Amino acid sequence: MKQKNTYKRVVIEGVTPEINAGRFPVKRIRGDMFEVEADIYADNYDELSAVLLWKKEGAGRWRETAMIPLVNDRWRAAFRLDDVGRYRYTLKAWIDPFKTWIRDLRKRLDAGQDVSIDLLIGAGIVAAAAERAKGRSAVALRKYADMLADESSEERRVKSALDERLARTMQKCCRGDNATSYENELTVAVDPPRARFSAWYEVFPRSCSPEPGRYGAFRDLEMRLPYIAEMGFDVLYLPPIHPIGRTLRKGSNNVTDSGPGEPGSPWGIGSEDGGHKAIHHRLGTFGDFRRLISEAGKYGMEIALDIAFQSSPDHPYVRDHPQWFRKRPDGSIQYAENPPKKYQDIFPFDFDTADWRALWNELRSIFEFWIGQGVTIFRVDNPHTKPFDFWEWCIGDIKKKHPGVILLSEAFTRPKIMYRLAKIGFSQSYSYFPWRILKWELTQYFEELTQAPVSEFFRPSHWTNTPDILIEFLQKGGRPAFMIRFILAATLGANYGIYGPAFETCENRPLKEGSEEYLNSEKYQIRHWDLDHPRSIRRLIGVVNRIRRENQALQNDRSLRFHGVDNEQLICYSKADETRENVILVVVNLDPKNVQAGTTQLRMDAIGLDWNESFVVHDLLTDARYPWNGERNYVELDPARMPAHIFRIIPQEPVKEQSISQKDSQL
Amino acid sequence: MKQKNTYKRVVIEGVTPEINAGRFPVKRIRGDMFEVEADIYADNYDELSAVLLWKKEGAGRWRETAMIPLVNDRWRAAFRLDDVGRYRYTLKAWIDPFKTWIRDLRKRLDAGQDVSIDLLIGAGIVAAAAERAKGRSAVALRKYADMLADESSEERRVKSALDERLARTMQKCCRGDNATSYENELTVAVDPPRARFSAWYEVFPRSCSPEPGRYGAFRDLEMRLPYIAEMGFDVLYLPPIHPIGRTLRKGSNNVTDSGPGEPGSPWGIGSEDGGHKAIHHRLGTFGDFRRLISEAGKYGMEIALDIAFQSSPDHPYVRDHPQWFRKRPDGSIQYAENPPKKYQDIFPFDFDTADWRALWNELRSIFEFWIGQGVTIFRVDNPHTKPFDFWEWCIGDIKKKHPGVILLSEAFTRPKIMYRLAKIGFSQSYSYFPWRILKWELTQYFEELTQAPVSEFFRPSHWTNTPDILIEFLQKGGRPAFMIRFILAATLGANYGIYGPAFETCENRPLKEGSEEYLNSEKYQIRHWDLDHPRSIRRLIGVVNRIRRENQALQNDRSLRFHGVDNEQLICYSKADETRENVILVVVNLDPKNVQAGTTQLRMDAIGLDWNESFVVHDLLTDARYPWNGERNYVELDPARMPAHIFRIIPQEPVKEQSISQKDSQL
Repeated sequence: MKQKNTYKRVVIEGVTPEINAGRFPVKRIRGDMFEVEADIYADNYDELSAVLLWKKEGAGRWRETAMIPLVNDRWRAAFRLDDVGRYRYTLKAWIDPFKTWIRDLRKRLDAGQDVSIDLLIGAGIVAAAAERAKGRSAVALRKYADMLADESSEERRVKSALDERLARTMQKCCRGDNATSYENELTVAVDPPRARFSAWYEVFPRSCSPEPGRYGAFRDLEMRLPYIAEMGFDVLYLPPIHPIGRTLRKGSNNVTDSGPGEPGSPWGIGSEDGGHKAIHHRLGTFGDFRRLISEAGKYGMEIALDIAFQSSPDHPYVRDHPQWFRKRPDGSIQYAENPPKKYQDIFPFDFDTADWRALWNELRSIFEFWIGQGVTIFRVDNPHTKPFDFWEWCIGDIKKKHPGVILLSEAFTRPKIMYRLAKIGFSQSYSYFPWRILKWELTQYFEELTQAPVSEFFRPSHWTNTPDILIEFLQKGGRPAFMIRFILAATLGANYGIYGPAFETCENRPLKEGSEEYLNSEKYQIRHWDLDHPRSIRRLIGVVNRIRRENQALQNDRSLRFHGVDNEQLICYSKADETRENVILVVVNLDPKNVQAGTTQLRMDAIGLDWNESFVVHDLLTDARYPWNGERNYVELDPARMPAHIFRIIPQEPVKEQSISQKDSQL
Repeated sequence: MKQKNTYKRVVIEGVTPEINAGRFPVKRIRGDMFEVEADIYADNYDELSAVLLWKKEGAGRWRETAMIPLVNDRWRAAFRLDDVGRYRYTLKAWIDPFKTWIRDLRKRLDAGQDVSIDLLIGAGIVAAAAERAKGRSAVALRKYADMLADESSEERRVKSALDERLARTMQKCCRGDNATSYENELTVAVDPPRARFSAWYEVFPRSCSPEPGRYGAFRDLEMRLPYIAEMGFDVLYLPPIHPIGRTLRKGSNNVTDSGPGEPGSPWGIGSEDGGHKAIHHRLGTFGDFRRLISEAGKYGMEIALDIAFQSSPDHPYVRDHPQWFRKRPDGSIQYAENPPKKYQDIFPFDFDTADWRALWNELRSIFEFWIGQGVTIFRVDNPHTKPFDFWEWCIGDIKKKHPGVILLSEAFTRPKIMYRLAKIGFSQSYSYFPWRILKWELTQYFEELTQAPVSEFFRPSHWTNTPDILIEFLQKGGRPAFMIRFILAATLGANYGIYGPAFETCENRPLKEGSEEYLNSEKYQIRHWDLDHPRSIRRLIGVVNRIRRENQALQNDRSLRFHGVDNEQLICYSKADETRENVILVVVNLDPKNVQAGTTQLRMDAIGLDWNESFVVHDLLTDARYPWNGERNYVELDPARMPAHIFRIIPQEPVKEQSISQKDSQL
């Protein structure tokens, strides 16, 4: 007669992870258990059931995982992300009359009440489920319904009511009429593990010649591979490898007039020899390039290319597609500016051009071109000066075909813009690490980065230096400063990078006092490096990268926890793997000039120990072991010898041989 | 030839306030300045403009308020909420080429650069705006464009470029092509001020007779009004006033068999005399009721009625609409249960009945009926046992016609359910205050309640006691315990209530040891109270309610800040009005038995002072004044005399007469 009411009694909200109401995907890597939580509740006191629904994007039907109630109406479920690509997920929950009935029946039985009418109510619930069930389940439920309704033996009725098989079958078959489906369908983007855990090494191939003054080529870089691999890097990032413009080419140390023999900046892309899809003739051929990729692969390294969407005045685009650039009222092409500064050797694209479709397609095709050559990692120059919508479309499209591609966003700009670029598709992002020097700065910044919501979409890559960034701390702190900043980058962050050989050889000369530019920057000239200089910290780099590979704790960012030390020059933090079997505790002396000592105040739960537990810390840098006890332990670090401990925590291991003091063993 | 690109470069996100992506309204009161903030940014370095759009719901066109950039890409605007009802609001932002051009022009001029081509670019921007502008603005802009393009006098061109009138006209007329409209249209529900600031007094009219044993009537309550008004309450809340069922009526102290003369529980609604739209014949007539409303109004008090959607077995609904109740398999009607407990004198409605439309309409009509009698405030009994969708529909519909109605949700249940009820429309909500006794419990709970997001939709009402809740602290702490809990409720919360005369006369006898039920509860029997007992704290109540009315600081919850005291038995907090001219600082001794002393650690910024400033605290309870200095000040409170200070902060006032110690002046 009247229609059944169809309103929903169950509320699903507060779903985590979820970015901008599902507008953007959450990031994970292949192999992760993906945990989803939500607030799920209804009016009144009925029992609920809930499931997490998930599937690989574009691949068949939804799969279900039952959610488990935690406390305070919070529910959780998880599934394994087996493939690279995108998964969809959402939730469903309903009032569960059978669960409610069983719960109440038990209470009534415990109180010794007459339950004969309650058993009839249960029979009705089970009979209704039988109507909707199929096959063997339907038969079984019908039988249970009959038993519950059979008034000849109270004992048998109760026994069948409490039968676990009945509960299981009902759980499987019984869906409330008015299940609530969560309002958003969400996405998790699954990247290859290297998106979360990588050590980058930036190098200018043209400076790789073993003979000073000769223009280095891919073949020279090939010779350099063992040196880089020995340090343990896994991504080898090359500045742009394309032909370089001649018009208004910059000379050494960024002077506006270049001499005749000067090589120009690799970011001044394009000449009569070609543009973004060509290789600078002095670097080698496409064959050489593919061979470099293949040789690097033998050392476990991937090549990352630099994608800089801008043109020199000599780029073929300027001649063939003048409509892709903005015109000034005098008819000239608008060069790059940061008023009052002018960069007349660089033409930015006009993403708003009437011919934008052709421009956008052409830019996307540059990625496709290099992917065709075997490149799977890109470092993207200044993405924040191009529209967000361009990147979202471009990256989305590329990843549909090549879900394993990794893109690093080089956007040193305001935080919300950096976060947005991560949300719209960049796999990794340069961070403010270079300018976080003091303990409170490091602590505050890394806590923001490694906790939700930021950690759900933003994967920071921490660089000790870049061709543009030589921080004052490195200029003035000597070799210990390089060791300190390296250990911080490599242990605070699962992703980090250095620009070498400038870094490992401790190059510290700025263009001028107060500048972060390098003197004789490789951006404008070819350099020859003394790789075997005694100042080099390449052995330390090799040890730390080995420790990173051998300890899963250092392969994620989310487990980072800071611990107290009663000295502002000492910073202490830990990381752990998912199982907490591998726990690493790092103490760094931030002062490159002086010995610093202090007492820790460990957060014992963060390192998987009881507040008063005894344990051993094994320094993976020096192989020394120390017996520690509870939260408070003495540490002392001499930057001239080794400015850090990288401890592995060993719970409860008995220590016999140790009588040396912590101080004595720090070599 | 080709179409203009229509993608949006500006992002608007992180809008506050916003509840569940705009699914629910934010709450404010009439007269509030309504502040809206958002993260607004774009790629690249262009200047942006943004506006807040708002209008009264269903009333004409959108109005605009320019947003002001704060720091870190956060923007803000505000408008005044002049009326009770609903307002809609949303945001719009766009790239502002003129602002960008002016900013860059100033930099170029400062650097002494040639700007002749830049002025031509500006002329183009202004000319384009002139095309789209109308009337005088269009004429003015065209003139400016001509001046900017006129190369005869550089000086005049620059002067007109920097003309403030040009900037203002451009601001008014110039909208970027691709303005971003925020994706959600949001709502703010504006209530009368009493929704945020109210002091409730619950009283059983049938216990108001001056003669012991006689059934009190509305006329008796009328005689009681001066007594209640003297205490300073502004809402007088009556338990249900309807005919009471006879079948299975509960007797004194909740025994299941009532004697013949027993009055029954007012929540056992409905008899042959009528149901939810009838008045119990011993209380009086509808005329008496309306007269009560009118008399209370003369004292500045409103009457709040209790709406309890349930029926006694004798309710006319049971006879006329048996389909509104659930049947048991034996054909009987399902009574209320909390297994194994059974409440056979109460029938809940079946909100899922096939006849739900008729039921829901009838229940809504109960509100309409009493609104017709002049009631504007309702206390709703156990709303969490009815579907959320019912309340959202019912309250939404009522408020469309009667936007000034206030509804208090009596849902003592899990926090997320309580919050949901607030989101779907309840104006106020009972809180867990009765069970927050210790300093850390009070601090943690009130910080959650008074900060966003909870404070945006949930208005707690803090009750010292109810007919169901006599907490152990009151049972055992003597008169000082009543003073302490009263001062906490009335100063921590802008909304609070007491159930009297049980409270002010310090009734502390529980039904039995370990129970929170009252002995001889008024729920089941008529009581006669000795209002003039020397134990009564009604004078203190009167003083505190006067302080609340005279100090705007106490009329909001959002300004609540806790301050340190080095004694766990002393709690210290402050509140301030919007302008911070009125700042109240409260210190309460939570120990009803012992004198407690300690030193404050004030958060000086929260009370509008510099960290080392001298000031005077004026105790509004005792009229004493003390010179204080900076964060640390000595306090000592004797619960036997007065367990609290309610200080008004008086910055920098010179104090001469004071030489008495703080301790001596506490009478």
